[in-house]
Formats: sequence, structure tokens, C-alpha cells
Amino acid sequence: MKKYVVGVDVGGTNIKLGIVHPRGKVIARTCFATSPFASSKIRLINALAGAVLDIIVQAGLTKKDIAGIGVGLPGPIDHAAGVVRFLPNIPGWRNVRLRAILGQKTGLPVVVDNDVKLITLAEWKFGAGRGAANMMCITLGTGVGAGLILNNALYRGEGNAAGELGHVPLNEFGPDCNCGGWGCFETYVGNRCLTARANRIMNARGMTLERMYASAKTGNRKALRFWHETAGHLGNGLTGAVNLLNPRLIVIGGGVSNNHQFLFPTIKAVIRKRAMATQAAMVNITRAQLGDDAGIIGAQVLVLANHGHT
Amino acid sequence: MKKYVVGVDVGGTNIKLGIVHPRGKVIARTCFATSPFASSKIRLINALAGAVLDIIVQAGLTKKDIAGIGVGLPGPIDHAAGVVRFLPNIPGWRNVRLRAILGQKTGLPVVVDNDVKLITLAEWKFGAGRGAANMMCITLGTGVGAGLILNNALYRGEGNAAGELGHVPLNEFGPDCNCGGWGCFETYVGNRCLTARANRIMNARGMTLERMYASAKTGNRKALRFWHETAGHLGNGLTGAVNLLNPRLIVIGGGVSNNHQFLFPTIKAVIRKRAMATQAAMVNITRAQLGDDAGIIGAQVLVLANHGHT
Repeated sequence: MKKYVVGVDVGGTNIKLGIVHPRGKVIARTCFATSPFASSKIRLINALAGAVLDIIVQAGLTKKDIAGIGVGLPGPIDHAAGVVRFLPNIPGWRNVRLRAILGQKTGLPVVVDNDVKLITLAEWKFGAGRGAANMMCITLGTGVGAGLILNNALYRGEGNAAGELGHVPLNEFGPDCNCGGWGCFETYVGNRCLTARANRIMNARGMTLERMYASAKTGNRKALRFWHETAGHLGNGLTGAVNLLNPRLIVIGGGVSNNHQFLFPTIKAVIRKRAMATQAAMVNITRAQLGDDAGIIGAQVLVLANHGHT
Repeated sequence: MKKYVVGVDVGGTNIKLGIVHPRGKVIARTCFATSPFASSKIRLINALAGAVLDIIVQAGLTKKDIAGIGVGLPGPIDHAAGVVRFLPNIPGWRNVRLRAILGQKTGLPVVVDNDVKLITLAEWKFGAGRGAANMMCITLGTGVGAGLILNNALYRGEGNAAGELGHVPLNEFGPDCNCGGWGCFETYVGNRCLTARANRIMNARGMTLERMYASAKTGNRKALRFWHETAGHLGNGLTGAVNLLNPRLIVIGGGVSNNHQFLFPTIKAVIRKRAMATQAAMVNITRAQLGDDAGIIGAQVLVLANHGHT
């Protein structure tokens, strides 16, 4: 019986692969650097196909055990057509028919989707969002994205582009954003902006968010203020989504969310103060649970959903 | 065959009733002022029950022709339980079991919901939003609300409180709002704020939005600037919803939307400039079509949906 899924999580830095058990457990993993293959999309697709076939063998399985391959990629994806529109951080990818090409190279059914949508599906089915009918799952990183589970289903919007929380304006006037807009949430809480602000506040160069976290743990007042201000921006940005969507749950993942002890109390306080009473009382804010495996596990959810197994 | 619906649209100023044909046409209408009944909720409910029974007779129908009564009210409603949580503009209404009470008094099935949700259902089924799977319907007035059609269904959120676009922050810091928050969209584009700004700009007292519209039509530069600035705020506020929800359509209704000639071009230009390319290219902005009848027609959509007729 075909019940395992090969999950592929394509990132700008690394590509992770895993074999996922029907209950969401990752039973085999592999990982390779993106950069050696970033120069040519066909080299990258060949590497993906090879790694998929390898990991199946390494796990002691055959293609007959595999329901399909799910691939998450960091950019806008035409999920229905199986086409990668483009990848901001991997050059040369524009309107690539990845589902068809990878399917042909592996002989297995393929589904492709945006990586944040896969992470959202994973947290919803197997992580922090189990049982939530209405939730938002946020990833904090260089980019800030969100996936929406609404009425017990992944909400894609008209063109699979819903969830761009990072590009919801936080202010009418604000810093220019590389999306072409300005004042976007990401220009306040994306890693690049946070790192620049950390260097300014600490009057230093080469300051990292990890060091700001370590400093905050030692009680450094500037570092504590830095995280407090960051949490304030996060709370302000989430208030709009809370009032508009009345979710039961907001799951926060991505690197910065490791600093939850310096972020979550302020985020919650801002939402309690600023959002409407009904919505504020109903929403819970929690950390993502699946960490680096989320993308791979989400690929499993998507593949099995597409095959009518869930 | 029970196929007609009695739609009731409870407002702070007037209460409108109508008999709605299965195809969405209003075949009989009546209207009475709210204020004589606003002092006591049971007097208001009695007036509603009497008006419902009267209009059925006046239309030459009997209760046997009526599938049910749909009531829209301006405030948070527990639709599932049939309970009015409270009405900001009609005192004394707090946790009123309107579905049960009105059902008993009329002998007809009753559904109750928030008025903006009913307007949204009406525009979606019979108005500007026909055929849209993902749309937002906005009402501009003293309050600014929105209804969301997502994945071909009304999206209610966890507690039927979704759609509070008027209380999505437009800026991190901004005017206090009567919701308890600050910087809310409504504090920039709600009628009260707009009227105050009009008086300031025209250096006058007693300036109305109707007069600002008339002045703009004569080419008055201050009035034109006023509407241009208003449209700028509207465009900025909608950009967030466009990026987050990737809707196909935004339908704009309510009094201020009559000034569409001075609003829509700027709103569209702001969204084109500020929203992400994919989302901006997909969204259409259009006027509501059903005007004052929308609430009554939406009641029909809700009643027939609850009876499984649609």
C-alpha cells in the first residue's frame, strides 16, 4: 500500500528531504546545500530527483510504498497547475513546470506549493494547531509569511497568494519594501531589519539576533528593550489579522520565535489592549512545534489530501 | 410551498422590512423609525413581530408561504445560538435571545446575524459579487465593516466576529477609537472622522459629506483634496487585506461610496502601487449594487441557506 510521502523543502540555503510516515513522523532525512545547484534550474531539479530516489532506497522502501512527492518552495507557486512562478532567492526560476518535470524524472506523482503553506498544514495536522478550525501560522525569518487555515481548510485566495502577512502595511508611511510597497510588516520585523536595528541600538557592527537574544538573557537593558520593541511591532501587526479574521489560534515559528520568552508576553499584551474584546478573548498565541521538519511534514499532508486520504 | 422570506434590517435610525422572492426580488417593503421603540427591547421585539405579520398579509401571502424570518442587526451576534450579544447604538440590548423570542411571537423560524454579513451575502448572491469565490464587501458609514466570502462561503471566524476591517489598525500610532484600540481604519474613514476633517479643511461648522461631494463636483479644490486624501486612506487600508487574503473582488457600499467618482480611481491607484503584483493584478474594486435593499435580501440568502435551499 502506498502510504509514505517524500517531502522536499527547498530553501535558499539548504534543501531538506524526508520520508514521512502516514502519522506524520519523519522516518528518514537528508539535506544538501542549495548553492552548488543554484546556477541552473535543470541541475537543481536533477539533484532533487536523484535525492528523492536515493532516500527511498535508503529507507528500505520502494516506489510502490510512496504515495507521492510534495515539494515546498520559497515563492509564489501555482499549486493547481504545478508551476513555480518564481523564487526570489534562487535565480533563474520563472514559470517552471516542476510538477511535470519532477514527475517524469521520478515516475512518482508530485505536488508543489509555497513553503509557508506546507508549514501551516503540518502545524495544523500534527503540531501546535491540531483541532483548530481557524488559525494563522506565521514564520519569522528574512521573509515574514503566514498560512491561513479558515473554516477547517487551507485558504489559498484567488491565485494561491493569500497569507502575505509580511506585506500587510503596518503604517501608512514607512520604510521601502522589496515587494515594491512600503511600511510593510516585514520592514519592521523581518530579520534584515531587526539585525540593522540591533546594530544601531548596540552601536556595533556584526551584531546578530542570536547575540541579542543571549544579551537579553543576561539582562542587558538595551537588548531587552530591543526585543520589547520588536514584540510591540509584532503585536500591532497581528492585531489587524485578529480583528479581521477572528482566529482561534496564531502559531508563530521561524528563527526569531526561539526568543519567545522575550516576545510572547508583550505580543499578547498588545493584542489584549489593542484588539477588539471578543476577538482578543478568543485568540491564543503559541509557538510552532515541528521546527525544521515542518516543511517536510506539510508536504505529506498536502500529498495525502490531494489523493483523498485525509 | 414556502419560498418567500421576510427580511428585517434593524438600524439605529430605521427598521426596514421586506418580503423577498426566491430570486432575490423585494416584492413588498415597509419601514419605521427605531427611536420610539429604542427605550425597551421588548417593545422593539413586539414591534418587529407585528410588522412581520402585517407585511405578510399586505403582500397577499400567508405564513404558509414564508420559509422564515431573517434579521440583521448592527452589532456582534451569536448566529449559531440566535443571540444578540449587544448593539452599540441601541441601548439595553445585551445577550438577547432574539431567535427564540421572535420565533415564539410569530410562529415562524428565525435566523439572526450581523447586518454587514447579510449585506455581504446579498451582494454575493444577487449583486456586485455574483460568481466571486473570494470577495470582501465593505460598508462605509459611521461604522466601517466588512463581510468576507472565502472559498465560496461566508467566513465567520471563531466567534462570528470576523470582518472588523474598521478596526484593523492603519498606523501603529493614531487616534483613539471607541473600540478601545487606536489608529483603527475607522478613525480615518468613518463618517464621524470624515465630517470632522471636512469642517477643519473647509474652516466651517456644519459641513456635511453630502456638501463636500457637491463641492467636489463643482471643482472646489479643497473638497477634491479632501476626497483624494480619503481615498488614499481607503487604498492604504485595503492594501493589507488584498495582500493577506488575495481576493478576486472588493465590493464597496455605504453612503460614502456614492462619491465613487472621487474615490475609486485613487483607491485603485494606491492598491496598484502598494499591494504585491500578483494580488493587485487579480483584485477588482467595484460599487455595491443593491443599496438599501441589501440587508433584506441578505436575510433571504441566510434563511434559505439555513434551510438547505441553496
